[in-house]
Amino acid sequence: VGVTPAAEAERYFHERIPLTRAMGVRVAGYEERGFIVEAPVALNYNHLQTAFGGSINAVATLAGYGLLWLELRGEADFVVAESTIRFRQPVCETIRAICAKPGKAELETFKAALRENGRARISVTVTVEEHGQVAAEFTGAFVAYRR
Amino acid sequence: VGVTPAAEAERYFHERIPLTRAMGVRVAGYEERGFIVEAPVALNYNHLQTAFGGSINAVATLAGYGLLWLELRGEADFVVAESTIRFRQPVCETIRAICAKPGKAELETFKAALRENGRARISVTVTVEEHGQVAAEFTGAFVAYRR
Repeated sequence: VGVTPAAEAERYFHERIPLTRAMGVRVAGYEERGFIVEAPVALNYNHLQTAFGGSINAVATLAGYGLLWLELRGEADFVVAESTIRFRQPVCETIRAICAKPGKAELETFKAALRENGRARISVTVTVEEHGQVAAEFTGAFVAYRR
Repeated sequence: VGVTPAAEAERYFHERIPLTRAMGVRVAGYEERGFIVEAPVALNYNHLQTAFGGSINAVATLAGYGLLWLELRGEADFVVAESTIRFRQPVCETIRAICAKPGKAELETFKAALRENGRARISVTVTVEEHGQVAAEFTGAFVAYRR
């Protein structure tokens, strides 16, 4: 019986990005709809007692980064190159960010570019939701460097 | 002898947005060139031992938010509505985000809209730098609601 990819990613976050512990970040799963990262508002609130925008952005960034790490670890290191986030409504209890898995063709193109050039770029889309409502929409571009 | 605006803003962050304490956020000043927020990479590193992109974004968001809070507290509450960040180079020791003060005319237009509509939107530009080099560029749109 092995450790699940979700548990591996959570341990990786907690070890390598220690702020994720202070934020109470957990990886909730890696399912058909995407890679899911959560953090409680209790550790991430702002002056209005809702989730701090900086925390929402950080959780969304981790959702994108974690998905790519699971898909490509061993092959590449990543950094986030740019991101845009739109906040739609406040988050009151749990920040829940879901990064959609890129399509198979897109991942293959990306891997081929990485093999050929030693470097490649990929964009991901992350939705932050609460009680089934969209709270924020995030897009991030990550650059990978072959190891 | 009173407390400086920079010290007031730092206390406000630490009290109202507790993650800023875990991040080691400090307000370094409010000068001609802008409102300056810093955080040490030692509390905000990633898997490469450089600053985590989520932390850089959070410090930049605080620089924008803090400047608006100092300029308009008493008149309005703010939330960040959207933001975009481009990462140019890694930050190795200190995340230092400088929010440029909006022009006088822009602030007046914003305040007039707030008085008239009870709600107004303003954009700010934040530069993250280290050793005089630009490490990231951030633009954020904030929405204010009259109290």
